Amino acid sequence: MPSLGAREPAIALVLGDPAGIGPELIAKLVARKDLMSRARVAVVGDRWLWQLGQSQAGLVLPLPEIGAWADLARRPAGACFFPVETVAPAEITPGASGPAGGKSALQVLRSCLAAAVRGDIDALCFAPLNKLSLKLAGMEFADELHFFAHELRVKGFVGEFNILGKLWTARVTSHIPLRQVSVAITKERIKEATSRLHSALLRAGFSPPRIAVAALNPHAGEGGTCGREEIEIIGPAVEESRAEGLAVLGPYPADTLFVRAQAGEFDGIVTMYHDQGQIAMKLMGFRRGVTLQGGLPVVVTTPAHGTAFEIVGQNRADPGAMIEAYGLAVAMAENTAFSSSKPAISRSA
Amino acid sequence: MPSLGAREPAIALVLGDPAGIGPELIAKLVARKDLMSRARVAVVGDRWLWQLGQSQAGLVLPLPEIGAWADLARRPAGACFFPVETVAPAEITPGASGPAGGKSALQVLRSCLAAAVRGDIDALCFAPLNKLSLKLAGMEFADELHFFAHELRVKGFVGEFNILGKLWTARVTSHIPLRQVSVAITKERIKEATSRLHSALLRAGFSPPRIAVAALNPHAGEGGTCGREEIEIIGPAVEESRAEGLAVLGPYPADTLFVRAQAGEFDGIVTMYHDQGQIAMKLMGFRRGVTLQGGLPVVVTTPAHGTAFEIVGQNRADPGAMIEAYGLAVAMAENTAFSSSKPAISRSA
Repeated sequence: MPSLGAREPAIALVLGDPAGIGPELIAKLVARKDLMSRARVAVVGDRWLWQLGQSQAGLVLPLPEIGAWADLARRPAGACFFPVETVAPAEITPGASGPAGGKSALQVLRSCLAAAVRGDIDALCFAPLNKLSLKLAGMEFADELHFFAHELRVKGFVGEFNILGKLWTARVTSHIPLRQVSVAITKERIKEATSRLHSALLRAGFSPPRIAVAALNPHAGEGGTCGREEIEIIGPAVEESRAEGLAVLGPYPADTLFVRAQAGEFDGIVTMYHDQGQIAMKLMGFRRGVTLQGGLPVVVTTPAHGTAFEIVGQNRADPGAMIEAYGLAVAMAENTAFSSSKPAISRSA
Repeated sequence: MPSLGAREPAIALVLGDPAGIGPELIAKLVARKDLMSRARVAVVGDRWLWQLGQSQAGLVLPLPEIGAWADLARRPAGACFFPVETVAPAEITPGASGPAGGKSALQVLRSCLAAAVRGDIDALCFAPLNKLSLKLAGMEFADELHFFAHELRVKGFVGEFNILGKLWTARVTSHIPLRQVSVAITKERIKEATSRLHSALLRAGFSPPRIAVAALNPHAGEGGTCGREEIEIIGPAVEESRAEGLAVLGPYPADTLFVRAQAGEFDGIVTMYHDQGQIAMKLMGFRRGVTLQGGLPVVVTTPAHGTAFEIVGQNRADPGAMIEAYGLAVAMAENTAFSSSKPAISRSA
């Protein structure tokens, strides 16, 4: 029964790895009725696991159930539960990796991605996965982002955005050896990462986004005496992005850039390599970081932290990043007008 | 008139670049009588510049004067002033680089280094210098550390230590292009940096120093699938250092290592490249960082920040890092028993 005005977005909440802190985090998030009222939310997972999550969080959260993704369209704002059967309790050892947990997580995620492709959900927000469990379950990709891209048949560039409060980062290179970085940072890749970051920031409500591009070398190459990539590659990429109308500055020395961003000077930073951004982002807020899976036709968010096996079942899991990830999913799902790329997949309107 | 017990160390305080915030910082430091009482301190510089620093800081600090470095041996604890003539007021434009300021700073530093060689002072602590001014004055070295090494005829390894509160870092490579880092980090250089850091930490009073070595690649190379330097170079260097009795761990992923260090797990971190440590250290405390010039036979410390030309003369300069740099110079001068390498220069005892 659609409302007359704009509908609240439809969001799938996934419990994540069954052996980790995900079910507890989702319970703590769902308990926040003020947040749930912003969307039509379907918690999806095995019924026993959702019960376990509530129990781990010391909460009792009775939710109405739906029997199919399509039912979500008829729900009012607030949370409901969509039970699936993927794994038995006996197959999971809390606090330990294993193929059953990975298989369960992949199965739930596949169901959500299919729902997104059909248009039944606007965004997907998942609790932490365990890379080892996913690999034990047979996932052949380097990470979940490439699994998503495969499932969604995305051929173009994909890359994580790392988000901490109001600061976003996008990487030009990611999981490659440091020795390969200087040859991998081409002008085209820098422009591509800048453009993707710009589009995502627009969709998240930054208008106009203020982006800075990090240098590669110490002190931004000291005028070419300590590396020439700033002059030959990064600088020209920034200039061309500016000529295309983006509010982009740089390249700036990486060691002071994050201090400037922390003071509020920029909304987004394009980093040249993994640790350049991650050293800073983890120091600025290890517990609050969020990852947006960039380059997909579906909004997909997750906390930046992991399954925290060492504290499973102790009701010590901090839902801060989970709440941030959910909030970002809602905000971006509400703002489809700013979608950077038209969905590459058809949707039943 | 030497005391019967251990003497307070003799420290030279240098005003730094005449056009920067150095004179104001030194005035604010000298006003702290509790700190001055820890050493026999000689503020050295042009009389007009010391007056200017007091005026900029809104302080009046009458000090007894000495006429030669050797006079410091007969002083009680506390600050005195050693006037020199290096530059006229008209030659200096506050807040601007210039050759006269650089020439003045170099002349004062040379005098201090000679005093250290003679044994008249135990340590040297200088307010910020301006690299451009030094180069305009004809300094031919990449930085002041290499100027010091040249003046002191040091042939061996020299390298900065960056210090923030109780956390120290030493770099295996410094001002080189990022593309050269992976070939520059040899096992020998890593062991050398580790050993130097260990010795300096011992001398600064950490016993035993707990040192971690940073990885080069994302996630420490992910078991060799994302770079092999951890397996082939860094890991063996750590093992050999451990075999030699040092409390060294690693290599650890750089993006979480600084979070662990911030929580107090380590006293020192050996970084593989400039920005790896500097991104973290500047985020953790841009205003408090201290640099120790490592590898010299003399203790030489300075604030990590620069001349801050934009706030010269406004009485806005924060003396926090200057105070830390002084405190470190005193602590290390008191602790000569732990000196890592016997002084390569003769001292009149």
